[in-house]
Amino acid sequence: MMGTLPRMLKLRAVLGRHQNLCWNFPSQALKQQSCLSSRPGLLLGSSWQCEVGSKRHHTEADRPKPAPAAAPDRLPFSRITEEDLAFFRNILPGRVVTDPDLLESNNEDWLKSVRGSSEVLLRPQTSQEVSQILKYCNSRNLAVNPQGGNTGLVGGSVPVYDEIILSTALMNHIRSFDSISGILTCQAGCVLEDLSLYLEQRDHIMPLDLGAKGSCHIGGNVATNAGGLRLLRYGSLHGTVLGLEVVLADGQVLDCLATLRKDNTGYDLKQLFIGSEGTLGVITAASILCPRKPKSVNVAFLGCETFEQLLKTFQLCRGMLGEILSAYEFLDSECMRLLNTHLKLTNPVHCQFYIVIETSGSEPTHDEEKLHNFLEEAMTSSLVSEGTVATEDSKIKALWSLRERVTEALAHDGYTYKYDVSLPVEELYQLVTDMRERVGGRAKSVVGYGHVGDGNLHLNITSQAKDPALLADIEPFVYEWTAKHRGSISAEHGLGLKKRNYIYYSKPSQAVALMGQIKALLDPKGILNPYKTLPDDQKP
Amino acid sequence: MMGTLPRMLKLRAVLGRHQNLCWNFPSQALKQQSCLSSRPGLLLGSSWQCEVGSKRHHTEADRPKPAPAAAPDRLPFSRITEEDLAFFRNILPGRVVTDPDLLESNNEDWLKSVRGSSEVLLRPQTSQEVSQILKYCNSRNLAVNPQGGNTGLVGGSVPVYDEIILSTALMNHIRSFDSISGILTCQAGCVLEDLSLYLEQRDHIMPLDLGAKGSCHIGGNVATNAGGLRLLRYGSLHGTVLGLEVVLADGQVLDCLATLRKDNTGYDLKQLFIGSEGTLGVITAASILCPRKPKSVNVAFLGCETFEQLLKTFQLCRGMLGEILSAYEFLDSECMRLLNTHLKLTNPVHCQFYIVIETSGSEPTHDEEKLHNFLEEAMTSSLVSEGTVATEDSKIKALWSLRERVTEALAHDGYTYKYDVSLPVEELYQLVTDMRERVGGRAKSVVGYGHVGDGNLHLNITSQAKDPALLADIEPFVYEWTAKHRGSISAEHGLGLKKRNYIYYSKPSQAVALMGQIKALLDPKGILNPYKTLPDDQKP
Repeated sequence: MMGTLPRMLKLRAVLGRHQNLCWNFPSQALKQQSCLSSRPGLLLGSSWQCEVGSKRHHTEADRPKPAPAAAPDRLPFSRITEEDLAFFRNILPGRVVTDPDLLESNNEDWLKSVRGSSEVLLRPQTSQEVSQILKYCNSRNLAVNPQGGNTGLVGGSVPVYDEIILSTALMNHIRSFDSISGILTCQAGCVLEDLSLYLEQRDHIMPLDLGAKGSCHIGGNVATNAGGLRLLRYGSLHGTVLGLEVVLADGQVLDCLATLRKDNTGYDLKQLFIGSEGTLGVITAASILCPRKPKSVNVAFLGCETFEQLLKTFQLCRGMLGEILSAYEFLDSECMRLLNTHLKLTNPVHCQFYIVIETSGSEPTHDEEKLHNFLEEAMTSSLVSEGTVATEDSKIKALWSLRERVTEALAHDGYTYKYDVSLPVEELYQLVTDMRERVGGRAKSVVGYGHVGDGNLHLNITSQAKDPALLADIEPFVYEWTAKHRGSISAEHGLGLKKRNYIYYSKPSQAVALMGQIKALLDPKGILNPYKTLPDDQKP
Repeated sequence: MMGTLPRMLKLRAVLGRHQNLCWNFPSQALKQQSCLSSRPGLLLGSSWQCEVGSKRHHTEADRPKPAPAAAPDRLPFSRITEEDLAFFRNILPGRVVTDPDLLESNNEDWLKSVRGSSEVLLRPQTSQEVSQILKYCNSRNLAVNPQGGNTGLVGGSVPVYDEIILSTALMNHIRSFDSISGILTCQAGCVLEDLSLYLEQRDHIMPLDLGAKGSCHIGGNVATNAGGLRLLRYGSLHGTVLGLEVVLADGQVLDCLATLRKDNTGYDLKQLFIGSEGTLGVITAASILCPRKPKSVNVAFLGCETFEQLLKTFQLCRGMLGEILSAYEFLDSECMRLLNTHLKLTNPVHCQFYIVIETSGSEPTHDEEKLHNFLEEAMTSSLVSEGTVATEDSKIKALWSLRERVTEALAHDGYTYKYDVSLPVEELYQLVTDMRERVGGRAKSVVGYGHVGDGNLHLNITSQAKDPALLADIEPFVYEWTAKHRGSISAEHGLGLKKRNYIYYSKPSQAVALMGQIKALLDPKGILNPYKTLPDDQKP
């Protein structure tokens, strides 16, 4: 009945013939790379380039033709004056930045794919200061770009033209943590990793974890409804965010900062701001329900021959690992080839599809036994061909790195066309197969990886260099395919500037029109993060 | 290390000295009574009575004076004509009910505390029919009361005057269930219990469970953001509802019926309708993320001497039971006295506070061992004085009934003033103590019970008969106390008709004003469930 140590070792002996092959990876900080690589600039080859508002990289002649993703013309907002600056300097003494060199990193996104030309950065410390700023900007018709850690991937976190950058960087105060209920209340500018460390000392964890955690702000996470690595287990921010404080476009402070698990008094307004990418209000504080820190974490890296087997393994896994399953991620053999070729990582097993399974639980012996029983069943029923498991922290990180460094390997492979889609889980990989067939030899690599447990596929296509003909093969095919299968053309990255006009592939026109009406209600002058989220035909 | 059977039995021997005392309860269907008793009419003594629009029970003289809870005057909606009926009969052949006797149960709420005087009940089968109905009603300025299973407790589910009742009863078709992802898509009129049975045959469960499950509709559950017994484990409907189809006041069908765990394409509009009590649109279908059915369920009934010990036990429990904890409920010794007196139930243990702990997991041996270790620690550290455990279904139901039949016992005790508040968990019981002190001998009983794990207290006060002086002692004190402690004056029941004007105790005026603006945007004529949710000063 109970898993004994010898029996566990025996299984490991079966599974572990390649076990040592993967322990040599540099594991430092690799766990932090789920979506972003830690080295800026690696993703320069992203499929989307936009340097509107700046001619630093492009002359007018070689500037890309207007496409659905390109920014529209600058809207008729006021231009900032000396009087405006004097006002800001008065309310934010020493916290108004106008030095172009200092503004550089705030004007450009992490992927270096979008660049604005803002001339002023404001660094408020309190919600009241944010309120004063917005009230003033609204009355003056000055556009504002709310900015957290600036780690977004869709051009939502930087100005497009000369919008004032409103940074939450100095709003990094933890207001309270209640260890009985697990409810944390903090300002929007707290860095996710800092919150994680704070909570770990108090035997809790944040309900979300993602690659950018060393930089991203919790306010930005909430504003973009960040997904990440723990969604399978702890659910989305729509469930774990219990309260928000938001400053509206006219400067009103909307206090929905409840610290209650249940509150059915009227419409749940805070939900509107989760995932609205700073276009409906500026989130200044949040209260979040935090889970207990797991006492035991295990990772298994397994190989399957077909995607169907991988899905059957998922079903088995949900049943047998039950409440301790915390991640079910995958990569295909093309990803592994790139990891081998470009990063010299060695595969611990050799198959067509690879699975990373993580368990997190409160009792190590029980967790190991559950994992053991599941692995035995998966092997004997021939769903899984090979595999290796890890319980030590360094080995866990090494196995995770095979999943997490795919982005980095792709950047080495060439110019990369990146897509982040959500699909019914049964159809997840068919898009990769269809795309591979469609682009044929024109692409260098067509790879699929992502969060199977969440139905979230990262589809990436590389070519030697930027190739308009290849792009024409890919788009709009990828969006049409996704729409046809009732998927989402942006699973977790949001729409921002880059994808705003593709919204109709995932949302019916009535829904988009209603979004436009809500935007007009909350921000009638459209000063908050203009050119983002809503398509050009829905701007106020 | 591992829990062996003899050791488990030994602990049971320690804990189980009263074990047999509680096995005699009639357990039939008791699990279904978390909030409601299964016998209609038991709660006639509710603190709130409103028979506006009908003089059946009150003459004008004895009708209660207008209070914050009383309905406002009838708004100037059109009155239904023969032409209107002809239109409805044309689109809903055989499904337009006008017989007053048949309308009786739809006009009156489950508590028999609110009665409307609607003369017509419409029973559409499809979203398109709902669309035709609302388009027509909006153009004719006819008010509509959307109705599911009519099990609400705040007068939200019945007409106040002559609103047309739009029932979802015939919209009970399950559209799809995906056993890989666990995603169910169904029409709004599916009865919660039917969905539960359907899913159990497919190795899954609904993420919510509540007393009214035999009658309530999933559309009504979503519209009221129902909480219930599983919220501690699976979270609120804001996290588990993945998509909604909603018909707006003007008849537009808003298709947000995604079946995806992740979708960041624009504002998450469906969230607006969750908990809006039918005032913003009529939910016609929902897709819901359903958990796997647990393979093992255990229940422990424990006694503590102080509420502080009860909270410390909760902390211990969260740590040691971790991922398998599925309920942490409590009742006080006054509740137990009423159970003894009125229902002849015998307490298995004798203490000041009683806890019901439920575990649900995927591996019976592991779950038993975790529970065993937790109980041992709770006993040796003197947090818990006495207790008994159950693993068999019938015994589990018997233990649960001690928690679930409190409502029934209260109804026998006298006229009951009922409050459902959410508070920071540390302050949960102080309200009961303060209330007891405040009302002194004027009340017959002052009892507290509820969902500790969710910070949700059910405070109930009984008296021999209706007592205006006692009510004046209780209200607005109870609301002011709750507001002072940043609690919610309605944790899970909603506002409906009864509590709409108390909203300001839990929400700031800016938030309420914004709710009013959203209502005006989505339902400019205010035809959807008028007199509900929003306070009288925010009606369109």
